[in-house]
Amino acid sequence: MKSDIEIAQNTELSPITEIAEKVGLKFDDLDLYGPYKAKLSFDKIKAVKSQKTGKLVLVTAINPTPAGEGKSTVSIGLADALSKLGKKTMLALREPSLGPVMGIKGGAAGGGYAQVLPMEDINLHFTGDMHAITTANNALSALIDNHLQQGNELGIDQRRIIWKRVVDLNDRALRQVIVGLGSPVNGIPREDGFDITVASEIMAVLCLATDLKDLKKRLANIVIGYRHDRSPVYVRDLKVEGALALILKDAVKPNLVQTIYGTPALVHGGPFANIAHGCNSVLATETAMHLADYTVTEAGFGADLGAEKFLDIKTPNLPAAPDAVVIVATLRALKMHGGLAKDELDKEDTDAVKAGFANLKRHIENMRQYGLPVVVAINEFINDTAAEVAVLEKLCAEINVPAAAVSVWADGAAGGLALAKAVISAIEEQPAEYKRLYSDDDSLEDKITKIVTKIYGGKSVVFSSKAQSQLKQFARFGWDKLPVCMAKTQYSFSDNPSSLGVPKDFEITIRELVPKTGAGFIVALTGDVMTMPGLPKQPAALNMDVTEDGKALGLF
Amino acid sequence: MKSDIEIAQNTELSPITEIAEKVGLKFDDLDLYGPYKAKLSFDKIKAVKSQKTGKLVLVTAINPTPAGEGKSTVSIGLADALSKLGKKTMLALREPSLGPVMGIKGGAAGGGYAQVLPMEDINLHFTGDMHAITTANNALSALIDNHLQQGNELGIDQRRIIWKRVVDLNDRALRQVIVGLGSPVNGIPREDGFDITVASEIMAVLCLATDLKDLKKRLANIVIGYRHDRSPVYVRDLKVEGALALILKDAVKPNLVQTIYGTPALVHGGPFANIAHGCNSVLATETAMHLADYTVTEAGFGADLGAEKFLDIKTPNLPAAPDAVVIVATLRALKMHGGLAKDELDKEDTDAVKAGFANLKRHIENMRQYGLPVVVAINEFINDTAAEVAVLEKLCAEINVPAAAVSVWADGAAGGLALAKAVISAIEEQPAEYKRLYSDDDSLEDKITKIVTKIYGGKSVVFSSKAQSQLKQFARFGWDKLPVCMAKTQYSFSDNPSSLGVPKDFEITIRELVPKTGAGFIVALTGDVMTMPGLPKQPAALNMDVTEDGKALGLF
Repeated sequence: MKSDIEIAQNTELSPITEIAEKVGLKFDDLDLYGPYKAKLSFDKIKAVKSQKTGKLVLVTAINPTPAGEGKSTVSIGLADALSKLGKKTMLALREPSLGPVMGIKGGAAGGGYAQVLPMEDINLHFTGDMHAITTANNALSALIDNHLQQGNELGIDQRRIIWKRVVDLNDRALRQVIVGLGSPVNGIPREDGFDITVASEIMAVLCLATDLKDLKKRLANIVIGYRHDRSPVYVRDLKVEGALALILKDAVKPNLVQTIYGTPALVHGGPFANIAHGCNSVLATETAMHLADYTVTEAGFGADLGAEKFLDIKTPNLPAAPDAVVIVATLRALKMHGGLAKDELDKEDTDAVKAGFANLKRHIENMRQYGLPVVVAINEFINDTAAEVAVLEKLCAEINVPAAAVSVWADGAAGGLALAKAVISAIEEQPAEYKRLYSDDDSLEDKITKIVTKIYGGKSVVFSSKAQSQLKQFARFGWDKLPVCMAKTQYSFSDNPSSLGVPKDFEITIRELVPKTGAGFIVALTGDVMTMPGLPKQPAALNMDVTEDGKALGLF
Repeated sequence: MKSDIEIAQNTELSPITEIAEKVGLKFDDLDLYGPYKAKLSFDKIKAVKSQKTGKLVLVTAINPTPAGEGKSTVSIGLADALSKLGKKTMLALREPSLGPVMGIKGGAAGGGYAQVLPMEDINLHFTGDMHAITTANNALSALIDNHLQQGNELGIDQRRIIWKRVVDLNDRALRQVIVGLGSPVNGIPREDGFDITVASEIMAVLCLATDLKDLKKRLANIVIGYRHDRSPVYVRDLKVEGALALILKDAVKPNLVQTIYGTPALVHGGPFANIAHGCNSVLATETAMHLADYTVTEAGFGADLGAEKFLDIKTPNLPAAPDAVVIVATLRALKMHGGLAKDELDKEDTDAVKAGFANLKRHIENMRQYGLPVVVAINEFINDTAAEVAVLEKLCAEINVPAAAVSVWADGAAGGLALAKAVISAIEEQPAEYKRLYSDDDSLEDKITKIVTKIYGGKSVVFSSKAQSQLKQFARFGWDKLPVCMAKTQYSFSDNPSSLGVPKDFEITIRELVPKTGAGFIVALTGDVMTMPGLPKQPAALNMDVTEDGKALGLF
């Protein structure tokens, strides 16, 4: 069996200019980055805004399990199948972070015959977006420390600086550091830490900005810390939003690449799905919607986190809401939700499928709360049995949700045709009537409570004493009109990662709130959140290499 | 008077494919980065190696003073003038670091009508080379700390790790840090620090590598620290040279841009000129030599440091030595070397010119030691008088060195014609007979002594007790066959920055040696060397901005 990189390197790519033509993009609309990558020009991004929008399909999933669900692969395969059916289709996907690539994963651009290419570039520096975000983030840090050093005119409390530095690497030794040591000319000693770049608020800002002006406004609104009187200090107080926007001026343009099948894909932005909203950029999704008849996009984690954030945080910044939601499930994962252990998944167990279906059913109901048609994608694995598939299809039929088996990993576009047809039918038969879960005017407390009770199925919310005082403080600062971004485990509807299936009668404790006033949301932390991964004992980097003529090796 | 960025933005650029055609490069030889930047393909870089080489002109300078000498501007103007005379000409220049751009300088790509374009891109992310180097450097740091955390199989002494992290920013607070704090899962606490990216040994490695294989070999040879028994630990012991080379696989390809006049310019690599050798990449210079009849390149700082390193460190990696050396001087700077203070430079003073000429004369003699023809470029400033110019021209004539006035900042290519003609004549009249100052087999002590006595004109060298024990240790490790890279003040031939003109009878003290076994040289430190600049009270970043349609503002 071929590895992902072997399949990728055996694919003959089309020049990106030819791919662009499929959706009416001309040579002058592109800034080429080599023959197979391009950024869209500002002129084109602006020009298409007046065009009508095509249909938008959001791909999400059940709560992920160690068995894996293959959401990106299904997204890519679905888009390819829509292309194969003659629909003018585009993908809008997140771009991967280099840190995990060097650590465990070795690559993240789909899999098998459903990949975006050139996977080596996408997994390494791509068009430099991550580096621009890293640079903007760390330029802000340097400017903050320089402000302290040069007299601290703004009166920033050095103990209450919340802006951290970042690197696009898995580097646990940088999680907690002390900077400014050695001598008075080396600045003010203080505690600091590094997150991975995708956890930077600037990533979230870039992904929610609708144009350069909006980007600059959001950058200006970032809170970097507090004064001794506890009043917030914004980037606009430092007057450096212009410089940060300048550093990001190219990174904000969506990147065009292609799938193995030749579907045009905008791969752009990739914020964390816990302390941020976990979707590719608004500009990529919006531009794809204006260019294509069908746009397939994806949200991070399961539908309780990723799709909720897509619909409550990202969608208000888009020209239109999704027309349909695809929920990806695998029989293996459903059997885990149904009570089986990881080493029991290879044997047929229709009862476990039935029990695990509860998890999928709750996600289906949740998406229907938003007024959206739902389609289930059953991503096939080698040990799935016909009896298990039949049980799952019957359960879906009972609640009137179309379901289609998918084999795009092995078969490419052909393996996604049933799903593509089901999606087209769902959209044509039932127009979406998007309703947001909460309104901006709801208090932060109400917003969180609605998410916990209506989406997670929890009983109630407990706010720590810290969170309670923050609720008052944030209302005073005028931050209570912002949406909420929940930072919760992806493995369960509850805040207990081992509570699979559909947990009942649980409370969610909000430990702390974090203002991301530039991105434009308030993060609600339900537990410890890791914002800087570490490397494993045998990092993927040990297998990586490059040949004398520049061919990448060891990206899986 | 127009600012550099105004002149740049008022210039209509040619598509880079048209610029490439001037030196026989075709569309397929390029990886485009937007319409005005490209990287050369590996295939083309390899293919031209068998072509004969054109003439190489090295531009260097007298010891710099606060009055400024304009070396990059003269290099660009000289190349443009050679183009204007019908010579097939290329430039090979360093690429600027973002840190100083955000700090004081606001930009570094020539000036006036002698600039490389697009200056905004070159001064910001360009084609991502700096970011790739930053990433490779910091990936190595993360892999070292991970090795410590995962059991430290190699027995690295955590107190003797010499590999530091980098950022491409001026960030004094990162000069000395403690990493690994907070918890056992956050790694081993230890002292560390950040240099600016251009000070990374990986920058020097990239700039001296002759191909990807050589790059990987040099990366493998980097010393990252020592074991408890003081034996060195190399990157090859960690087995990550393949991953680092993979991260650098595109960064190693030279970048093609254009001057205002339309001369093709390879702008690639930019190592520090103190703790590294301060020249653009070997691959850029070599490729230009194969493509053009005349290649103009530049070395950092004054000729005592930059040209010495070009000739003793870089040249052995090139297919041929320079055919001529241009030494840039200004009357203002000569008057400072002649004893005037900065506020006295606007008045005519031919005696100060005469006195200051001694500095220029010593550099001329030094370059002649290498067997190379020399031409003096007098870079004109507004307050220069005819009498002063006449004195300088007469002094040059007395020692039989051609001199030409240059006004390329104000006049572009036309302002460099006299210099271009003088350079062509010098090359045609006197074939270069390059002799290196020392041989690889000289001991490190002898190499340093030759540089100090023959180039600086010093009396002798004093080695600190630390340096003395290092000399023995380095010989034991087999590092004594490497060339020496002097880290000395650029402002004086001596190690005292305020000793202008031609200091006599001075000793140079070597405080410490630093192994850069990957780059392939041993750094000899004569004093404290700053490898991480700080930001000023009013950083250039405060003036930077970007318009709604993506136009950069505030890069001077």
